[in-house]
Amino acid sequence: MATVNLIEYEDASPEVRAIFDDIRAVRKTDFINNFWKALANHPTSLKRVWNDIKEVFAPGELDPLVKELIYIAVSVANNCDYCIHSHTANAVAKGMTAGQYEELMALIGMAHQTNGMATGMKVPVDPEYLK
Amino acid sequence: MATVNLIEYEDASPEVRAIFDDIRAVRKTDFINNFWKALANHPTSLKRVWNDIKEVFAPGELDPLVKELIYIAVSVANNCDYCIHSHTANAVAKGMTAGQYEELMALIGMAHQTNGMATGMKVPVDPEYLK
Amino acid sequence: MATVNLIEYEDASPEVRAIFDDIRAVRKTDFINNFWKALANHPTSLKRVWNDIKEVFAPGELDPLVKELIYIAVSVANNCDYCIHSHTANAVAKGMTAGQYEELMALIGMAHQTNGMATGMKVPVDPEYLK
Amino acid sequence: MATVNLIEYEDASPEVRAIFDDIRAVRKTDFINNFWKALANHPTSLKRVWNDIKEVFAPGELDPLVKELIYIAVSVANNCDYCIHSHTANAVAKGMTAGQYEELMALIGMAHQTNGMATGMKVPVDPEYLK
Amino acid sequence: MATVNLIEYEDASPEVRAIFDDIRAVRKTDFINNFWKALANHPTSLKRVWNDIKEVFAPGELDPLVKELIYIAVSVANNCDYCIHSHTANAVAKGMTAGQYEELMALIGMAHQTNGMATGMKVPVDPEYLK
Amino acid sequence: MATVNLIEYEDASPEVRAIFDDIRAVRKTDFINNFWKALANHPTSLKRVWNDIKEVFAPGELDPLVKELIYIAVSVANNCDYCIHSHTANAVAKGMTAGQYEELMALIGMAHQTNGMATGMKVPVDPEYLK
Repeated sequence: MATVNLIEYEDASPEVRAIFDDIRAVRKTDFINNFWKALANHPTSLKRVWNDIKEVFAPGELDPLVKELIYIAVSVANNCDYCIHSHTANAVAKGMTAGQYEELMALIGMAHQTNGMATGMKVPVDPEYLK
Repeated sequence: MATVNLIEYEDASPEVRAIFDDIRAVRKTDFINNFWKALANHPTSLKRVWNDIKEVFAPGELDPLVKELIYIAVSVANNCDYCIHSHTANAVAKGMTAGQYEELMALIGMAHQTNGMATGMKVPVDPEYLK
Repeated sequence: MATVNLIEYEDASPEVRAIFDDIRAVRKTDFINNFWKALANHPTSLKRVWNDIKEVFAPGELDPLVKELIYIAVSVANNCDYCIHSHTANAVAKGMTAGQYEELMALIGMAHQTNGMATGMKVPVDPEYLK
Repeated sequence: MATVNLIEYEDASPEVRAIFDDIRAVRKTDFINNFWKALANHPTSLKRVWNDIKEVFAPGELDPLVKELIYIAVSVANNCDYCIHSHTANAVAKGMTAGQYEELMALIGMAHQTNGMATGMKVPVDPEYLK
Repeated sequence: MATVNLIEYEDASPEVRAIFDDIRAVRKTDFINNFWKALANHPTSLKRVWNDIKEVFAPGELDPLVKELIYIAVSVANNCDYCIHSHTANAVAKGMTAGQYEELMALIGMAHQTNGMATGMKVPVDPEYLK
Repeated sequence: MATVNLIEYEDASPEVRAIFDDIRAVRKTDFINNFWKALANHPTSLKRVWNDIKEVFAPGELDPLVKELIYIAVSVANNCDYCIHSHTANAVAKGMTAGQYEELMALIGMAHQTNGMATGMKVPVDPEYLK
């Protein structure tokens, strides 16, 4: 637990293999990234989090690439290095252009800046926003 | 400074009025929200931040609504109450549907969850993501 | 505990009164702010945190006002509304000028921006910084 | 200062050695972890922080293992990689089971998720919680 | 969406009422707190998050009160005012003593302090923690 | 984009070279640190952020070293490892003494501690701070 044990498919229990198989089927790739290999130490959590992720990334009203951009934005603000790497890779796989990436980074930077300034100056919420 | 002084158009210097006029022209509305009235105490900062915002929100490769969703995502992670209110209002004004909002909140929640778990388990970045 | 109980001097135990007296003596003011009244529910913590604060704010190589500016910067990044209010008031009391406050807010904003961008782009630390 | 200088016992001043001796005595181990070797550059801080830690981890109403779990939870949310490693190792040393660790990671993940959603949706505190 | 609409039981759809009924049954109380009334705008999310919470708080190897303390610790670090209020109220309901609460606040404070110092000094993880 | 591409002066466009030349001229050093080499993938952002940094660090009412200390404080709270390294190096270059560094780390630690405790205890802002 002090360091993480990554569980490979070959060493996984049938319960974990079933989730890994589902991840591969849904994502149409054999690649299982380390997050799931780490969670495989906790089969109940693996199942719950994978089902959640499947539901949240299911086709909906937001474009699949947009979902990755939002995920990156949160991961940067929370400073999750693993998540920034994995979701940026996902966004590239889903067709993110260099121009979109530049705009994403610029927006993340500006949001941080105005977040800090609005908080620092203690700006009250406009009544117009509370209607 | 202990509380913020909100500068109204009528009480603003010509320098500040020029920025307020530009905000109104670019946004096609008379409404100036409190963030800018607070920044108006610091005309140099007002000018710099407004020019930055104008550049970052200029037409580009990301949809204007998507830009607001990304801004909301960062603001939630940074817990900037003012910014959550203002950019959610902006997103509504730009046509965010109830379904898109539900997906945004769900994604923000899930990203926080997996950010926390990946960080907590100390998951190493996959070599595949470093290519 | 669900809401905080603020303990006034009149209602405090002799142990808490002794700390309150020391706060008043060190700060040369009768005013005891709510943070200490809240901590007074936990006399051991009150004593430990007050002694820490006294030591950290004791005369040293950084100017007393600079110490408050640093405290504000951390409090904004951590989004502690109480702490932003109290330390901004302290900074004003220690002579912070309007120009210094503008520069402080501008720096906090820019630091947030470049923090977000450096983290988002996963910029590696320069070897020059590791010497 | 650009990188940290870790001070070993052999190279430490008598003042620092006294604290290191106390750390070893209280923890019943010869091992001094890097946090203290780093703080040893600042003897006043070393003494203050060690005394604080000793007081906060002194026997009380919370179980020593529970204290480590709480420490891990904060460290994950603050994304302190060093602290996650050291306090997870401490928790293992204090008997944390694999099942407890799974529950800890699951709770940390869920707390992050609902934190993000409650903040994002701007949920008002129930009057029942303010009684 | 700019402000949250809290959905009461009487106005809820049968789908939402079923979840509300389950919350009441599991928690053995008629009280539905605002978080769920807010999530009720998004029935899919309501169902997913409630099922997750039920699973994470199901009887396990950690004491129910300890789970609340961990939840509070994360919520404080993430600065979720709603979550701090609700989980502190839960902890009180589950029997948290004044002494436990003092120790919790003291630990949260100290963890924040050493998190900040370890990060600030860039302390490298001890090889002993990576075994 | 999955990993960052650092653009060296020799490989840069004339537009980027002009900014790099300006960085060198303003800072009176040939050294261009990785943050700018990373931003050089996005020339519009490079120009905007550099101009902002130049403005924010222009001579003003706060001492240049104090500005670096504030930048470090924010970077630690946001846990930006790159920024902590670069601005600590800058502070050293601008003459930060060992004593000032100790006080900075101590203040950052204490601010984190009291931020966490004030937030955790839900301390209300004193009316005196809202005048």
